[in-house]
Amino acid sequence: MRPRLVLFGDSITEQSFSPGGWGAALAEHFARQADVVLRGLSGYNTRWALKVLDRAMEGAAAGAADPAAVTVFFGANDANLPDQPQAHQHVPLEEYQANLRAICAHFKNQWPSAAVILITPPPIYEPARILDIYGDNAPSRQPERTNEAAGTYAQACIAVAKELDHPVIDIWTKMQQFPDWQTSALCDGLHFTPFGNKILFDEVLKTLGSIGFSQHSLPSDLPLFHEIDPKDPLKAFEI
Amino acid sequence: MRPRLVLFGDSITEQSFSPGGWGAALAEHFARQADVVLRGLSGYNTRWALKVLDRAMEGAAAGAADPAAVTVFFGANDANLPDQPQAHQHVPLEEYQANLRAICAHFKNQWPSAAVILITPPPIYEPARILDIYGDNAPSRQPERTNEAAGTYAQACIAVAKELDHPVIDIWTKMQQFPDWQTSALCDGLHFTPFGNKILFDEVLKTLGSIGFSQHSLPSDLPLFHEIDPKDPLKAFEI
Repeated sequence: MRPRLVLFGDSITEQSFSPGGWGAALAEHFARQADVVLRGLSGYNTRWALKVLDRAMEGAAAGAADPAAVTVFFGANDANLPDQPQAHQHVPLEEYQANLRAICAHFKNQWPSAAVILITPPPIYEPARILDIYGDNAPSRQPERTNEAAGTYAQACIAVAKELDHPVIDIWTKMQQFPDWQTSALCDGLHFTPFGNKILFDEVLKTLGSIGFSQHSLPSDLPLFHEIDPKDPLKAFEI
Repeated sequence: MRPRLVLFGDSITEQSFSPGGWGAALAEHFARQADVVLRGLSGYNTRWALKVLDRAMEGAAAGAADPAAVTVFFGANDANLPDQPQAHQHVPLEEYQANLRAICAHFKNQWPSAAVILITPPPIYEPARILDIYGDNAPSRQPERTNEAAGTYAQACIAVAKELDHPVIDIWTKMQQFPDWQTSALCDGLHFTPFGNKILFDEVLKTLGSIGFSQHSLPSDLPLFHEIDPKDPLKAFEI
């Protein structure tokens, strides 16, 4: 039975199958080895995610087997500032951590053998957020999200992961190590360019590898073309 | 329970989650509505596909529900010329048709309510095939596949679809209607560029629409962000 990876998160997960997206890249990378299941909910914070957890996961695990891993990638919306236009997405820091704990507990309860991989919110490029929300002529406006707030939520996410002994991807820190990350990795100060997607994809692969889930370690589904003997092709299909 | 689309075919299916790929585009398009399951087997012809059908579909249908649709996209390898280097992939025309019938029968038997959508082999651009196989200095070589042979197999595929009353996508004809299809739609005379992928994606959407499977007709998973009232967000999550 093919193992499964479940991707659970907000818009950065929902959009992960766009051209160059990190979800599609995982599906391509593991095309002959694993199924990638998309459960992205644009705009959601951890409070809302927790409300729909059971319904969101319907059909995510095929049959009896636990998914091999599930990524939990929330916080970009929780970290919205409480006094700006997207305030209804804001979740206070302590509740964000409590919600993450509850989401992880739910997964470990439902799928004891699944690895639960936390991903921190990404960094924010504030001028692009102001542009995205208010258009060209808004130099006096404040962004609805700040990089500082995202960093605080990222640290809070890492703390929960350490407390629960779950692997965590600190995409907030990682992304900021790349030149011009503000525009090379982010397309609107929040969502990912193909390059930003590649950064996350590489981190997810690395984390999956650390729990023994890799192209190298997984069996391939059915004989690969180069394993089929041109002189006796059907031999490869004898069970 | 989310409906599922199963993509079954050769390398053009296996590679369909590469950047701009038609499989990833389906997963993105139906992100909040359906799961797309990848079952691509590079290099396979219908003879080999038939040998592995049961094993290839393990885990493809989650639980009890039939997939809504399965695409069957073989023929590009069957149509290899019998006297060229890829002859071991060649399947005679009549056997190709018999194998397609057997694959369709298997799916209709296993998943009675699933729509089985046949896709013809794509057109072939022969100079690019010669270049791909023999490199730069091979003007005297013959290609391993010809567009004429692919067209013959495409017609044979269409005939089987009509006989069985299954929807069929004639990508061989459709693709050749686009300017410079030889290089705009194909990257190596056989596999698809992002533009070629887009052509097939559009055709698959159209065919799915014709059987009542569309963004418009399918319910969306869980409240969409614009349906959540900023003044009372949790209201949207009351069951």
